[in-house]
Amino acid sequence: MVGMRGAYGYNDNGNEGGVVVGGGEAEAEIAAMAVLHKVAAPPAQSTASKLKARVKETFFPDDPFRGFKGKPLTTKWVMAVQYLFPILDWVPSYSFSLFKSDLGISYAKLASLPPIIGLYSSFVPPMVYAVLGSSRDLAVGPVSIASLIMGSMLRQAVSPAAEPLLFLQLAFTSTFFAGLVQASLGILRLGFIIDFLSKATLVGFMAGAAIIVSLQQLKALLGIVHFTTEMGLVPVMASVIHHTKEWSWQTILMAVCFLVLLLTARHVSMKWPKLFWVSACAPLACVIVSTLLVFLFKAQKHGISIIGQLKCGLNRPSWDKLLFDPQYLGLTVKTGLVTGIISLTEGVAVGRTFASLKDYQVDGNKEMMAIGLMNIVGSCTSCYVTTGAFSRSAVNHNAGCKTAMSNVIMALTVMVTLLFLMPLFVYTPNVVLGAIIIAAVIGLIDLPAVYNIWKMDKMDFLVCLCAFAGVIFISVQQGLAIAVGISIFRVLLQITRPKMMIQGNIKGTDIYRNLHQYKDAQRVPGFLILTVEAPINFANTNYLNERIKRWIEEESSAGTKQSELHFVILDLSAVPAIDTSGISFLIDLKKSTEKHGLELILVNPTGEVMEKIQRANDAHGHFKSDILYLTTGEAVASLSTFSKMTAP
Amino acid sequence: MVGMRGAYGYNDNGNEGGVVVGGGEAEAEIAAMAVLHKVAAPPAQSTASKLKARVKETFFPDDPFRGFKGKPLTTKWVMAVQYLFPILDWVPSYSFSLFKSDLGISYAKLASLPPIIGLYSSFVPPMVYAVLGSSRDLAVGPVSIASLIMGSMLRQAVSPAAEPLLFLQLAFTSTFFAGLVQASLGILRLGFIIDFLSKATLVGFMAGAAIIVSLQQLKALLGIVHFTTEMGLVPVMASVIHHTKEWSWQTILMAVCFLVLLLTARHVSMKWPKLFWVSACAPLACVIVSTLLVFLFKAQKHGISIIGQLKCGLNRPSWDKLLFDPQYLGLTVKTGLVTGIISLTEGVAVGRTFASLKDYQVDGNKEMMAIGLMNIVGSCTSCYVTTGAFSRSAVNHNAGCKTAMSNVIMALTVMVTLLFLMPLFVYTPNVVLGAIIIAAVIGLIDLPAVYNIWKMDKMDFLVCLCAFAGVIFISVQQGLAIAVGISIFRVLLQITRPKMMIQGNIKGTDIYRNLHQYKDAQRVPGFLILTVEAPINFANTNYLNERIKRWIEEESSAGTKQSELHFVILDLSAVPAIDTSGISFLIDLKKSTEKHGLELILVNPTGEVMEKIQRANDAHGHFKSDILYLTTGEAVASLSTFSKMTAP
Repeated sequence: MVGMRGAYGYNDNGNEGGVVVGGGEAEAEIAAMAVLHKVAAPPAQSTASKLKARVKETFFPDDPFRGFKGKPLTTKWVMAVQYLFPILDWVPSYSFSLFKSDLGISYAKLASLPPIIGLYSSFVPPMVYAVLGSSRDLAVGPVSIASLIMGSMLRQAVSPAAEPLLFLQLAFTSTFFAGLVQASLGILRLGFIIDFLSKATLVGFMAGAAIIVSLQQLKALLGIVHFTTEMGLVPVMASVIHHTKEWSWQTILMAVCFLVLLLTARHVSMKWPKLFWVSACAPLACVIVSTLLVFLFKAQKHGISIIGQLKCGLNRPSWDKLLFDPQYLGLTVKTGLVTGIISLTEGVAVGRTFASLKDYQVDGNKEMMAIGLMNIVGSCTSCYVTTGAFSRSAVNHNAGCKTAMSNVIMALTVMVTLLFLMPLFVYTPNVVLGAIIIAAVIGLIDLPAVYNIWKMDKMDFLVCLCAFAGVIFISVQQGLAIAVGISIFRVLLQITRPKMMIQGNIKGTDIYRNLHQYKDAQRVPGFLILTVEAPINFANTNYLNERIKRWIEEESSAGTKQSELHFVILDLSAVPAIDTSGISFLIDLKKSTEKHGLELILVNPTGEVMEKIQRANDAHGHFKSDILYLTTGEAVASLSTFSKMTAP
Repeated sequence: MVGMRGAYGYNDNGNEGGVVVGGGEAEAEIAAMAVLHKVAAPPAQSTASKLKARVKETFFPDDPFRGFKGKPLTTKWVMAVQYLFPILDWVPSYSFSLFKSDLGISYAKLASLPPIIGLYSSFVPPMVYAVLGSSRDLAVGPVSIASLIMGSMLRQAVSPAAEPLLFLQLAFTSTFFAGLVQASLGILRLGFIIDFLSKATLVGFMAGAAIIVSLQQLKALLGIVHFTTEMGLVPVMASVIHHTKEWSWQTILMAVCFLVLLLTARHVSMKWPKLFWVSACAPLACVIVSTLLVFLFKAQKHGISIIGQLKCGLNRPSWDKLLFDPQYLGLTVKTGLVTGIISLTEGVAVGRTFASLKDYQVDGNKEMMAIGLMNIVGSCTSCYVTTGAFSRSAVNHNAGCKTAMSNVIMALTVMVTLLFLMPLFVYTPNVVLGAIIIAAVIGLIDLPAVYNIWKMDKMDFLVCLCAFAGVIFISVQQGLAIAVGISIFRVLLQITRPKMMIQGNIKGTDIYRNLHQYKDAQRVPGFLILTVEAPINFANTNYLNERIKRWIEEESSAGTKQSELHFVILDLSAVPAIDTSGISFLIDLKKSTEKHGLELILVNPTGEVMEKIQRANDAHGHFKSDILYLTTGEAVASLSTFSKMTAP
């Protein structure tokens, strides 16, 4: 009788023809059974070709060379050069009007005045990115978070005050490794690694980092001389309170005034986007005004600390400063890895955001190569880690820039500053720089996003909170590690404890859905219909085994229904993959259901799962074709018919 | 017109009634639309109750207290005591016949003679396990792999030859932490952590460890005096070849003879399971014969090394030897963690294997608490890490033991040995102990399992191979770490690059299946029907976004069909969960399909996904109810009708 039912996936069934007609009533049912559909295995493929397809999807998900197909060889060469140097794409179409719209931005950008290495880093990297980068809106330069992480990691080993040269060498070397990591990720097509920084992680991390950065500015804002070298909330606040005697009222007054000014400008620009130039120009205005004030009132003699003499001149080569001493190699590699990945995440995210706003594509892996090369070149020309910065790019975008030329213009403006304007910064007070930094990073605290995450997903909120608390209470890199760890752990937990649902029939249809979700779904007597919503693998087979056995036990001992349960249907539609442990689990489950006098039915295994079930059948004959069905509906219809026919 | 179509999941649709009848032809179609089913959201639940349910599934998947429900309080107390001390379950039913069947096993077990700490460890832990453990077949004692790992980790810091007391202290302290880790995992219900050691990992790891253990025995088998302290294949073989002058032919002859004897006995027992006692007794026989040989021929004077004097007496307390010195704390905690988890994995796996053979349940978390307490007690009584051993348990099982009493019997036999028989071991040659260890661990190399893994899953095979190669070429713990890393990375990769399939209609049905797998499935003109088979989260939204856009692009530019593509259907049946990044992705996808003049349709979102889609709609109105359908069939039917009706 077994030959009569079931859907056949294998070719080994020679006995399908032997249908025994049970009587007049049964004929209609046999006709109904004729519409049963077979579960098919995907066409046979060699391991090599499967591997090739998987490698392609993993490393070349964007199929970057599809435009090359069917072009003549010379065209292919031109396209390859254009692929590597996107500058050739847009330079021919660059016109004066674009130039003009870019100029203003660069001007405004100059405003967020960094110390000399920061200025150097705003000169060379933008030039490199203009040649290699594929995003039109990305404005390149040093960013707060990567700077912060690099500082805090290197400071653990070397004091910047005691050994300034060594510290500088380590910074350049870390930058070199950061670039190497970034370029390698791009070349090896491993860009998906940065995908593991979820939005929730980043929101929490950025907010924490913003607070840490702001706390560091308290030194400048309060005029404290003996400040802690630690970064955490607790030690910094302790240090601030401990040194109340060093507080300087002149500095504090100046800090408050400029901070209010900058925040007001920011608020204005946020409210009326057309006035974006207000916040873009505010920092420069503050620098000029404060420098003049100090100069006129000789304020440096009244407790206001100033930048002091800066040398004129462009970036000096620094490849001789790269330090591959084994003593510091571990530190610089680690610092490079962390800052490289963090700055890459920011750069790629910013690039993608603006690309999707303007509806063009940014090639993530190419972008990584560009940012990586930019940092390698940077490390040899007195620059530290740079990447695409969100705030600068937003100004770029608002000003209507259309090509990466904006980076070139900015670099040229910085060049002029470096060559001629450095003496003007002698009297610039440190306090105004602190205020500018605070005003800039305050935008990283994205409360609406936090609220949205809280509304959407409590677990994501927890991740966000851990990243935030980790950064401000433990350390920047550990906070990040904790948040990434929790994100990954959560994904693994979903696999380890997959959702399993009992399904029921929606009245009057052959649709089967989750009983909990659909109130009009009804249990089918005699059937336990289960879905598993995860790959079945080593991480969850034990759980699935225990859970299903518990369900069967509960069903069997449910009093009146005891005699009724005949079939356990496992709907595999939502199981994308199965491994050897998973196959063992299915075999075990089949044996244990048989011990309880039940029959295990598998419904709709997907390609890979079907293939392995077939292999297990070939090897040990565990899964005869009569336990496979294409839909739950067909399985229930066919099996009910069958049990009616075989009933006495 | 929008109000006419779609399935409604929300309560906010007041305008469903406004159906505009287009003409006579359309009436039948409207009747067809009447059978559309609604996508329901699961009933509203508070975050607290959802959290409770999830915590329950994560930490109490076996619902261990379900037997307690509805019992009177005194019964509950008795049951709670029985839960904690399973000995009370079976002691009342223990009869003399069981006692007899256990005796023989214990006798045989004594044979695999360990050094004195090993003997101590075969005495106390089995007693503890007999009281606390829930498995009836598990035979407790020191096992090769945990011993190996502990040795290799502690040896990195302290030389056992130079500082034997310190080494012993570290071993006891590590055992203490191992026990603490194991008991904590059990108490905190975190038992699923050991699930991350997949079968493939274990097979490769065990085979590698067996080879490493065997290599270590070459010292005894060849009679080498100056042996390397390293563990890897390369240094050990180098050391063996370097010291050919130290090889002693008498020792080698003895080694070969006893090895042949032991392997033959093993082979006999494997072929005829009833003769299990042959291999069980062989080690003891070898020890007796070899000891007699040495004694009679005074072989210790001819280059055969012997064990030498061992002190009589039971385990001495060792809690004063536990060393919590900060200098070694990191090392002992780490060693305890690794050996604890490894030995736990072995113990629980062995317990589960035999439990499923005899069809009873082993409570994984309770088992962990038992093994953990056993090791904590052990560390205070001169024992090192112990767990359930596969080979001993197999002997137990074959001999027909039925309760944990076998452990008590074994402990008593060891006690007699410790008290009275120690002087007899003076002349036992080390070479025979080496041969016994090799014969024991050779069984860990499971070639049929490797072949099966190769046939089933090439990726699992790679994991297995990496574990094996890592163990023999790098180090035991790093090999394990690599294999676990690859297993987890593979799971993450499945999430990062989820399978997406284009579906087609199976002729004459409303079933939609993967085009690649089902050759009789056909594309529906005007529709791009996609399934995603993974949770949609931060790790894959970028990939999904790029992949879907590429498909839409390919479809749109496919020449003649260009004008036809109207709808992109995303079947979410196999998406068990979605996070905030996933929701942002859906919103982005909707916007970008709209830009291309296409409509995005979501089919059959599962409970959690539906809930979040609804929340996103409440917040921003992104997902109107008319883009949700319960099945692909209904969506296609309804939308085809709709586009026909709206066509001019």
